[in-house]
Amino acid sequence: MADEKKVYLDYNATTPLEPEVIGAITSSLTEEWGNPSSSHDAGVKAKKVIDEARCNVANMIGAKSSDIIFTSGGTEGNNMIIQTAVKYAYHDMSNGYPGGDNRDKLPHFITSNLEHDSVKLVLEHLAEEGTASVTFVPASSKTGQVDVDDVLSAIRPSTCMITVMLANNETGVIQPIKLISEKLRQINQSRKSLPKILLHTDAAQAIGKIEVDVEDLGVDYLTVVGHKFYGPRIGAIYVRNLGDKDVPLYPMLYGGGQERNYRPGTENTVMIAGLGKAAELVVKNIICYKNHLSSVRDYLEIKLQEAFKDRIHLNGKFATSERLPNTCNVSILSDKLQGHKVLSNCRILQASIGAACHSQNRPSPILLAIGVPESVARNALRLSVGRETTKDDIDCVIQDLIQAVNQLENHITET
Amino acid sequence: MADEKKVYLDYNATTPLEPEVIGAITSSLTEEWGNPSSSHDAGVKAKKVIDEARCNVANMIGAKSSDIIFTSGGTEGNNMIIQTAVKYAYHDMSNGYPGGDNRDKLPHFITSNLEHDSVKLVLEHLAEEGTASVTFVPASSKTGQVDVDDVLSAIRPSTCMITVMLANNETGVIQPIKLISEKLRQINQSRKSLPKILLHTDAAQAIGKIEVDVEDLGVDYLTVVGHKFYGPRIGAIYVRNLGDKDVPLYPMLYGGGQERNYRPGTENTVMIAGLGKAAELVVKNIICYKNHLSSVRDYLEIKLQEAFKDRIHLNGKFATSERLPNTCNVSILSDKLQGHKVLSNCRILQASIGAACHSQNRPSPILLAIGVPESVARNALRLSVGRETTKDDIDCVIQDLIQAVNQLENHITET
Ligand SMILES: Cc1ncc(COP(=O)(O)O)c(C=O)c1O
Ligand SMILES: Cc1ncc(COP(=O)(O)O)c(C=O)c1O
Repeated sequence: MADEKKVYLDYNATTPLEPEVIGAITSSLTEEWGNPSSSHDAGVKAKKVIDEARCNVANMIGAKSSDIIFTSGGTEGNNMIIQTAVKYAYHDMSNGYPGGDNRDKLPHFITSNLEHDSVKLVLEHLAEEGTASVTFVPASSKTGQVDVDDVLSAIRPSTCMITVMLANNETGVIQPIKLISEKLRQINQSRKSLPKILLHTDAAQAIGKIEVDVEDLGVDYLTVVGHKFYGPRIGAIYVRNLGDKDVPLYPMLYGGGQERNYRPGTENTVMIAGLGKAAELVVKNIICYKNHLSSVRDYLEIKLQEAFKDRIHLNGKFATSERLPNTCNVSILSDKLQGHKVLSNCRILQASIGAACHSQNRPSPILLAIGVPESVARNALRLSVGRETTKDDIDCVIQDLIQAVNQLENHITET
Repeated sequence: MADEKKVYLDYNATTPLEPEVIGAITSSLTEEWGNPSSSHDAGVKAKKVIDEARCNVANMIGAKSSDIIFTSGGTEGNNMIIQTAVKYAYHDMSNGYPGGDNRDKLPHFITSNLEHDSVKLVLEHLAEEGTASVTFVPASSKTGQVDVDDVLSAIRPSTCMITVMLANNETGVIQPIKLISEKLRQINQSRKSLPKILLHTDAAQAIGKIEVDVEDLGVDYLTVVGHKFYGPRIGAIYVRNLGDKDVPLYPMLYGGGQERNYRPGTENTVMIAGLGKAAELVVKNIICYKNHLSSVRDYLEIKLQEAFKDRIHLNGKFATSERLPNTCNVSILSDKLQGHKVLSNCRILQASIGAACHSQNRPSPILLAIGVPESVARNALRLSVGRETTKDDIDCVIQDLIQAVNQLENHITET
């Protein structure tokens, strides 16, 4: 069994690195190890790599390269953007920020109840320590999305930021960011005496799977996470017209002045080189990627339905909502088929029951949030396909699932 | 000239990666790309690599592996430790922290005036925003060190942390951390009603050049920076008995719970693998490294003196202070030989006039702080040798310097 071929369907947890990305990293490991702040050749060479990567990342999301700051990852990016909004709000408050009722003494955030922990827990922490107040807008059980009007009607005089992810990591459901930004623009214009409400989207799961364009989305901030699109474990943030006071960015760290003082620390040149290459590949191939992913994912869903008939429940599929092309969140209905049991009886399939950082055996809070009944949510499998997944792989996975289900339903069950 | 061999003597700015480190990184790039939080094989494999690396890093500094947290670099480590002390102090204050005079309403830090910007600017920022007060203890011009009694006599009831680097990045002078910790232990015992004063040292420049042992030093926190010892651009922090309340650690980021919630974000497995390998090499070879570095550095200083006679001023050499074995901070006296001019007239030598993140042409604040006269400081060259630097390289550098000096003194000078 140790030699049996495995099929990895957990590309939303992380992806392998593309050979070209590995190439960029390994050549940089030997060639561009200089300190990018040094003025001699070794430094200049490293700096050039970083500049190129910044262009490629910017290109990938339709941004200017001067609007990109490299970070250690998505978690840092999300934290930094939210902390920026807090500082921005306090700064405005000290300039006579117009508060309303008592709650309005604190900077107010609006978010969804679908966010990754690197947004959710930051906001919960701010609320707990009494630094900010937060509205978690519940997603609709009819669409798997937050409702645009729900988001906007949560706005208060003290609202400083709306942060909603672009695509959910467990269901793949794409959130209505563009609609929010369009309506928010009007609202911002009509509340002239109040500070602008900033709009952030965590695009960790969307990049590399669908086209992402900051102009089209109309966001002020966007989070990029390399290891979700076959790049390395660093990230970047986009900040609209970085440097203008309209959309501020406050550093979380102080130090040697790198990244224009917004994110000091000697640059991780080799990882940045890899991120740039991964971005370049996305620019070049996004249509291919998208088509491939959706054809394999759709095949998977057809085969699941053929194998398990009406016992299949697709948790992230809603008539009117778009989904990521690679994500299939599925429950096989039965009181013996909890997701973690099914996975531990699989021999080939490597997948998860939800976000990797929640590997416990509880039903996913995200699925409960979009109205999936607990008995169904408990059985959920998050199957996320990748660039190299084939229909043959899917056929193997289906056989494996049939085998696991048989085992659990007819024989002694593992615990 | 483009093909002329270069000699890099800027190993304090950054080091190349050891071939074994590159090997660990490249094998990890293809083998251990899984998400360490995933429970399937890909995840388990990655987690194992991280556990091993943590052991190696701990080993290198005489710590338990449970006391090591990986960070994105030294800048993050230093910021996180200082921010921890602020939170620790405020926590104690809200429990009836005994303040004295008015200044004592704020958490108080003691540091040196020799610190890297990732300590200095954090503290200056805290002081500016009114969150903490800071005493910058001036180093002695007789030793290039802070005086232990000066440090300890700056203690106030509100002092929460002493942070002093282990070895200075520009002069190489080793600071008296062990003496500070010994006396501080007594002081902490005798001020029982007051919160313990925490001791941090930034060991960025010391590791890989001299033996570093947290028990011997007696510190509570220590910062590790990979790219200064032939490792990758990440870092780690040591926290004594991490998890006990005696020496706290507060996260700066919130997210997916990685690094026991102290530092969330999907782990940068490949860089961590490289850091572990770099640490393993240090454990194995530190005596060799040290001997090689000092023999080459001492040869450099002899040759400098032979070439330039009494025009040589060694800025970091003090009779009673120990220095890093690889660092030579030297001025060639003359009003035409400013460091940046000398370097830009060199054809072979790649070095710096001070910290890489201060590549401007001003005299180094560190040298001024240890009493080097401005006219001498302006001419300073920081020459830092590495594991692969040979005496032949030094001979080339000496010829190159003679050539550059001749050019500047006898011919049309470049600006
Ligand atoms: C939606 C989303 N945001 C943010 C992150 C955080 O990225 P990282 O853990 O790499 O910091 C992830 C993935 O883990 C994610 O799925
Ligand atoms: C003494 C010292 N501390 C901290 C750092 C910061 O390390 P990094 O820039 O890699 O975050 C450096 C080097 O740049 C240093 O020399």
